[in-house]
Amino acid sequence: MNAAERGAMERALRIARNGPRGVNPQVGAVILSADGDVLAEGWHRGAGTAHAEVDALSQLPAGGAEGATAVVTLEPCNHTGRTGPCAEALLAAGVARVVYALPDPNAESSGGGERLRRAGVDVAQGLLEGPATELLESWLTVQRLGRPHVSVKWAQSLDGRAAAADGTSKWITGGAARADVHRRRADADAIVAGIGTVLADDPALTARQPDGSLYDDQPLPVVLGARPVPEDAAVVRHPRRFVQYPGSDISGLLKDLRERGVQRVFVEGGPTVASAFLREGLADEVLVYIAPTLLGAGSDGADRPALRSVGVDTITQQRRLHIDAVQTLGDDLLVIARPITKED
Amino acid sequence: MNAAERGAMERALRIARNGPRGVNPQVGAVILSADGDVLAEGWHRGAGTAHAEVDALSQLPAGGAEGATAVVTLEPCNHTGRTGPCAEALLAAGVARVVYALPDPNAESSGGGERLRRAGVDVAQGLLEGPATELLESWLTVQRLGRPHVSVKWAQSLDGRAAAADGTSKWITGGAARADVHRRRADADAIVAGIGTVLADDPALTARQPDGSLYDDQPLPVVLGARPVPEDAAVVRHPRRFVQYPGSDISGLLKDLRERGVQRVFVEGGPTVASAFLREGLADEVLVYIAPTLLGAGSDGADRPALRSVGVDTITQQRRLHIDAVQTLGDDLLVIARPITKED
Repeated sequence: MNAAERGAMERALRIARNGPRGVNPQVGAVILSADGDVLAEGWHRGAGTAHAEVDALSQLPAGGAEGATAVVTLEPCNHTGRTGPCAEALLAAGVARVVYALPDPNAESSGGGERLRRAGVDVAQGLLEGPATELLESWLTVQRLGRPHVSVKWAQSLDGRAAAADGTSKWITGGAARADVHRRRADADAIVAGIGTVLADDPALTARQPDGSLYDDQPLPVVLGARPVPEDAAVVRHPRRFVQYPGSDISGLLKDLRERGVQRVFVEGGPTVASAFLREGLADEVLVYIAPTLLGAGSDGADRPALRSVGVDTITQQRRLHIDAVQTLGDDLLVIARPITKED
Repeated sequence: MNAAERGAMERALRIARNGPRGVNPQVGAVILSADGDVLAEGWHRGAGTAHAEVDALSQLPAGGAEGATAVVTLEPCNHTGRTGPCAEALLAAGVARVVYALPDPNAESSGGGERLRRAGVDVAQGLLEGPATELLESWLTVQRLGRPHVSVKWAQSLDGRAAAADGTSKWITGGAARADVHRRRADADAIVAGIGTVLADDPALTARQPDGSLYDDQPLPVVLGARPVPEDAAVVRHPRRFVQYPGSDISGLLKDLRERGVQRVFVEGGPTVASAFLREGLADEVLVYIAPTLLGAGSDGADRPALRSVGVDTITQQRRLHIDAVQTLGDDLLVIARPITKED
């Protein structure tokens, strides 16, 4: 693999990002002449549109890719979905060499590299595999899990309360913690809140900069629970139209979100919703923002814990976590942890 | 202040530690000849016994301290308690110079330096004041607070539970956290547990090395609450005879402990006792050992929070903390924090 191919792969990785994060991976492709000149480039614009290789080939006149090298960020597919297999398209175009960064993790569509090799094309895999893996991290996670990646976030006092006994809680965490939450919202594809929280706190479920302006990327707002969302709720004014799921079938919700192209779900919808995801074992990451304060229960025994039942009745059922990081955010702490699963 | 005086102060600080931590401060004294030779040394052995200066002078024949220099870790006292004022004793012995590290913080007994100076003795203050302050840190704290220093410790899951819904909790924190607790017990003068915890968990309230052997220093075990301690309770076999306080008068308990010479109290007696100290504003430090686990409430709603009511019914009453440190202990976290008081 020469400098021209490396440069082409860097370019392919860059243009891949022009495509949307969705059901399909973000992929970029660059066609090089035998002399290493860029002939064409393309990227995938989302499910139902041409794959990156085909998008690039389509820029060229008939025969224009004869003897050329195709540099692609992901192994060309080998199956006929809504579009034909890319491996066949590359063969038909007379490409002599194909370089790709990452093998296709899907059994259904993989084998494109092998198909090309058997047809006499020179095939090389692994160029800039690290950056390519990084680019497709959430998509690869969805393929591995069979569902979107789920981060469950909550804020609590050091002693685990979401609010004081009377329900008041405004700003127990500070500005740095809130800014961190908004950055993570912007990085998510969907944000899930319970209808109880929507009715009680009227959250906007938008990702906002510290100055109050909206981030360019906004998560899809999702409301969980059957009670109707009031017409004047803040979430109704969200730049994206909110989606409501009436039931408590978290797996079904995630399946549906995956089909909508959601790769990253940010759950911050209050104790009921957070507990439900944890109880079902459907949290890949927990983000606990801990305010340096003690709230306890009320003098009348009323209590507002940040989590309710997570399915633990006795200590042997405890939900152990692996702590990945403890960060200081202003006066607050952020604990980032992963539930330990049987595979760990 | 010359090298001989500095060396004498270092020696005085060392021998001061021979005395007990108690109602009176640990003090050491060294008498130097005009040539800088050590003539005698002494330390204070506890309330009702000779002060360090008098202890040192008593080693010398009559007239033996004439023209000598007395090097003392704390300002010689100026009041007649159970023993006469040290300032007078030094004057009577004909000492020409007195060097002390730390001024006496007690209005009642202070002024010894001034008394000596007015009598024509050469007086210097401040030699090794830092190490002397460190030595007397807890005693100075008792003088400042008017009561012993109180550390309130508890262990909890990340979500603030002391136990699973059915009360099981054994070893939610790991070995490193437990070893840290035992080191802190050894460093305390008294350890307080509620009778509820004594009856439920039967704690030994001893400070043990990781191999199970006892530390040399053992805290006074204190049981809070009226119900009788069973004859076969582990605390009955504590190397020190346990003390029981029937009531819930935390201030009264601390007053009594101060009179017993207790400078450092370690409270780890369960949610009821920890909450009581916090509610009364009588915690100087909180030590929260956080296990990387989630427990939540039980599926029947039963809940075992690490803290109960700390007197907060609405958010404006929250007990804000200043976090001094977050330490990793094996898989666990230790958060060391101070309740923020009005003076902060």
